[in-house]
Amino acid sequence: MRVSTSFPLGTLRDTPSEAEIISHQLLLKGGYIRRVNSGIYAYMPIMLRVIEKISAIIEKELNNNGCSKLLLPQLHPADLWKRSERWEGYTVGEGIMFNLKDRQGKEFGLAPTHEEVITSIASEIINSYKQLPLCFYQIQTKFRDEIRPRFGLMRSREFIMKDGYSFHSSKEDLSSFYKKMENAYKNIFKNCGLDTVGVDADSGAIGGAASKEFMVTADAGEDTILFTESGSYAANIEKAVSIPSKEIPLKNCKADWLETPNQKSVFDLCQKNNLDASQIVKVIIFVAKFEDKSEVPILACIRGDQHINEVKLFNLINKKTISNLIHLNVIEDNAIIEKNLTNFPLGYIGPDITDKTIRSNSNWNKSWIRIADYSVSNLSTFVSGGNKVNFHKVFQSFPFNEKKFLISDIRNAKEGDYISLEINDTLKEKRGIEIGHIFQLGQKYSEKLNAKFSDKDGLLKNLWMGCYGIGVSRIAQAAIEQNHDESGISWPIQISPFEILIIPTNLKDPNQKKLTEEIYSEFKNHKIDVLLDDRDERAGVKFKDADLIGIPFRIVIGRDSINREVEFSCRLSKSKIKIASKNLLEKFISESKVMYNKNS
Amino acid sequence: MRVSTSFPLGTLRDTPSEAEIISHQLLLKGGYIRRVNSGIYAYMPIMLRVIEKISAIIEKELNNNGCSKLLLPQLHPADLWKRSERWEGYTVGEGIMFNLKDRQGKEFGLAPTHEEVITSIASEIINSYKQLPLCFYQIQTKFRDEIRPRFGLMRSREFIMKDGYSFHSSKEDLSSFYKKMENAYKNIFKNCGLDTVGVDADSGAIGGAASKEFMVTADAGEDTILFTESGSYAANIEKAVSIPSKEIPLKNCKADWLETPNQKSVFDLCQKNNLDASQIVKVIIFVAKFEDKSEVPILACIRGDQHINEVKLFNLINKKTISNLIHLNVIEDNAIIEKNLTNFPLGYIGPDITDKTIRSNSNWNKSWIRIADYSVSNLSTFVSGGNKVNFHKVFQSFPFNEKKFLISDIRNAKEGDYISLEINDTLKEKRGIEIGHIFQLGQKYSEKLNAKFSDKDGLLKNLWMGCYGIGVSRIAQAAIEQNHDESGISWPIQISPFEILIIPTNLKDPNQKKLTEEIYSEFKNHKIDVLLDDRDERAGVKFKDADLIGIPFRIVIGRDSINREVEFSCRLSKSKIKIASKNLLEKFISESKVMYNKNS
Repeated sequence: MRVSTSFPLGTLRDTPSEAEIISHQLLLKGGYIRRVNSGIYAYMPIMLRVIEKISAIIEKELNNNGCSKLLLPQLHPADLWKRSERWEGYTVGEGIMFNLKDRQGKEFGLAPTHEEVITSIASEIINSYKQLPLCFYQIQTKFRDEIRPRFGLMRSREFIMKDGYSFHSSKEDLSSFYKKMENAYKNIFKNCGLDTVGVDADSGAIGGAASKEFMVTADAGEDTILFTESGSYAANIEKAVSIPSKEIPLKNCKADWLETPNQKSVFDLCQKNNLDASQIVKVIIFVAKFEDKSEVPILACIRGDQHINEVKLFNLINKKTISNLIHLNVIEDNAIIEKNLTNFPLGYIGPDITDKTIRSNSNWNKSWIRIADYSVSNLSTFVSGGNKVNFHKVFQSFPFNEKKFLISDIRNAKEGDYISLEINDTLKEKRGIEIGHIFQLGQKYSEKLNAKFSDKDGLLKNLWMGCYGIGVSRIAQAAIEQNHDESGISWPIQISPFEILIIPTNLKDPNQKKLTEEIYSEFKNHKIDVLLDDRDERAGVKFKDADLIGIPFRIVIGRDSINREVEFSCRLSKSKIKIASKNLLEKFISESKVMYNKNS
Repeated sequence: MRVSTSFPLGTLRDTPSEAEIISHQLLLKGGYIRRVNSGIYAYMPIMLRVIEKISAIIEKELNNNGCSKLLLPQLHPADLWKRSERWEGYTVGEGIMFNLKDRQGKEFGLAPTHEEVITSIASEIINSYKQLPLCFYQIQTKFRDEIRPRFGLMRSREFIMKDGYSFHSSKEDLSSFYKKMENAYKNIFKNCGLDTVGVDADSGAIGGAASKEFMVTADAGEDTILFTESGSYAANIEKAVSIPSKEIPLKNCKADWLETPNQKSVFDLCQKNNLDASQIVKVIIFVAKFEDKSEVPILACIRGDQHINEVKLFNLINKKTISNLIHLNVIEDNAIIEKNLTNFPLGYIGPDITDKTIRSNSNWNKSWIRIADYSVSNLSTFVSGGNKVNFHKVFQSFPFNEKKFLISDIRNAKEGDYISLEINDTLKEKRGIEIGHIFQLGQKYSEKLNAKFSDKDGLLKNLWMGCYGIGVSRIAQAAIEQNHDESGISWPIQISPFEILIIPTNLKDPNQKKLTEEIYSEFKNHKIDVLLDDRDERAGVKFKDADLIGIPFRIVIGRDSINREVEFSCRLSKSKIKIASKNLLEKFISESKVMYNKNS
């Protein structure tokens, strides 16, 4: 491709101020993407080449694993999503799905994911166990009405994903295919030249039994990964489990009551009363709003030095209730409290608060769902709220299990925690960018959408399903987080828009012009992805752009053209050599081979 | 690919009843597409291969013409479309654009076309004439909220298009690039194995100076093409111009008035009064609704044997008024007439009806826009309405031009019309499926969106623009309309999902199995697109499916395997030969070469 006639570059001189992280800045500055609206970007030609290279790597690996590529619609009828009971959650609930009415007034969503559509198709085309397993995938633009679109393609409202869906005749077959996909994913990311780590993950609104995320580790990541140095454990903080540090026993505390004026926080309470946070039971109030419109007050107890994991709490409540949980909000607003609760001294609540606190005219359910984290269930003595303003109470053991508490893990694991009582291995923390997620969905969707197959024994059974996502546009940006320097991007060669860039410094010089055309033709004839910067610009401008856009190899054709010599350089190592043009192709082939092999 | 493990077929036994035309039936029956909702389809793996082959043909040709592929967003902010003054027309007006509000209440449209977005980007990246011309294109799913989705992918609500946009420093450069694109389009369609015809076309809501459509001729087409046998002229009926047949002069008609009870139609009037339709001036009433909410009554006159072309009428009114025309509706509803007009004897209206007929309390404008087709402007004597129930009047010449009539071509050309007074060449009529459309947009969008460049003379000027569309999914279906028989599809090899299909009749026979694997490997190693139907099905089922899905060449491996002989056949010619397996590859290569060359 020639920059002047068919491949315009659109680099910027200044770093756009709206971009917070380096990869977003470099995508904009390098002319890779252009902002059309908040979280909505155009992929310029140079970016689309990156996307297509990533897509080709994904396709090759998935096709080798017997998956078939198709293309599903982006407009999904609400009916289908109502059958899976996700319409409410995705629209009025979390509100992540753009939705609209057509000219007939029928409701549609703009697809963020395709379980419903593919399951409905599978139910039509799969009859017998003989057809199984089957795996379909697509690479397509997805939509999410993000609350706060940011970081460029990391959290945008339109983004490109590979999503795949597999169908099986048994849980075992699903499980073995899931392992095959886990392996395929490792190959894909390796073949993209990325360093990734696989972590245990929460399945979120997608649902299902097991799921694993693949993370590009980078400081700009939105996710927190907890892992052990030995590699024995890695999980997203949303999912991670650990053993909390041992509490400091509360001894010699004879008092039944503590007068604690204005001491609503654990911090104040500890400071003023010489207590350790592990000696306190924190009580936090939530309200859970369900699809059937019911609202239920939640009383959640956790040890004072620990933090509630709202993902775990959400999943626990959703699992224990019949209607789908749509929202879970922490209650700190006095107006809401006064409307629904009577004599409710927030900040001084204890686990023994009675159901009578819920106002009879409130639209909340009339009894608390009481939940205690494992960290409090075995505390023998602890301090907690006295259910009276400015007073806390000392509890000499409190039988959570006898008092109708659900006892479960609703706690955030954190750096320094042990992963088991047996192994002397503590958790470390890193930031990560999620670029892939695989799920064992089980029969959740096939059950709701009545997708059955006839098994060996002649019985109709629900299909077993897995689903497998890769953030294609996100990979492109995550790769930049891992591969850049102060001058710009330094693409892994596998996903670079071009493998090599040719820069003639002065095309008015007939020797340079001739040699440039010769080299360009030679590389093109060898099917090498080559870009020729034949703009009528100063060499300095071209060099600066070259550093910014980050193509891994570069040939500079200058005054030595007269001796048929050029400069060959590498963006990553910054090495430069003078080389006879006749040896150039061979040099490139050997150097690029090293780079391809290093990462894959 | 192997049908059993990675390429499931989903053929149906019965023809789906909802499909009206053969190509739609065959797409469904052949398992190419599956309906998800009205006008919304999933492209199954076998269909996606067709789409990808068409896309590759388009890309190759456009890249050779210096166009650059990019990818623009599908969600478009209303602001941009308001700047081009198309938001109202595309949403509340024609209502063709799906639209929604995001969680912040901001309006977005789901893109049916991308002039606004690309012009806005061009305005940011193009500074100087030195960067021009530039042409960007994308291949992407588009959305249209069709009033009546039908015919499968022909008129669907989600469809795949190639849309391209070029930018120029002058009208001349646009014009020469447009010709280059016209040629590129001819190559593309030829390379897809299609017979197409280019016709003059209306530019519709896209706008601009000149436009040309490319049609696949087929009885199922929704468009009417008028053309001369000699090839000197071809146009869409929406745009076609012609010379109407000569009127039969109205002579010896002494009467001033005709009593014409219940003779509201031209047909009745002619029958009862021994008149020829060409002696009558038909008056048709419309109401034009504009973006500024104004409503204007339209009085349109045309010769009784001719028909009004509402596209021409719409364009004429839109051009002559300041506000954008949103709707043009013919008025036949008595309730609407009585609300807005007084003493208005519909069916008996003449061209001389006064503005006083418009009720003072109507929200219609208080004077008619009067429009006369060329066919009436020179009539010396004619019959028209007497503005009185049951009476017509004989007009001894009527000076349309003096009576504030816009005189223009608002007439449908039709089969049999002459194309000029000089040439003895009459119009023929055919049906066509529009698969491509190119436009010279001029400066319409650059002006509205302030997209300027600095010209050689240092002055800032509006960019000149062209736009170029191809219906990718529509091509796939149109190809079937042109290439099928009673057993199924017969793909042009260029866009067939596979070039050749291998059918072993009995894989339990070890000879067959061995020979099958050998041949399959040999073809794969030669990079031939080969599908192996290795299902455990009866041969008859496989043959029927093969005829239905329409891959151009077929190898049947049967009992003669023992002699290393197989059957080689062609879907189109139905020819079959027995051939030694060692000669098979050579045979396929020579036969397929003929087929590739025949069409391209």
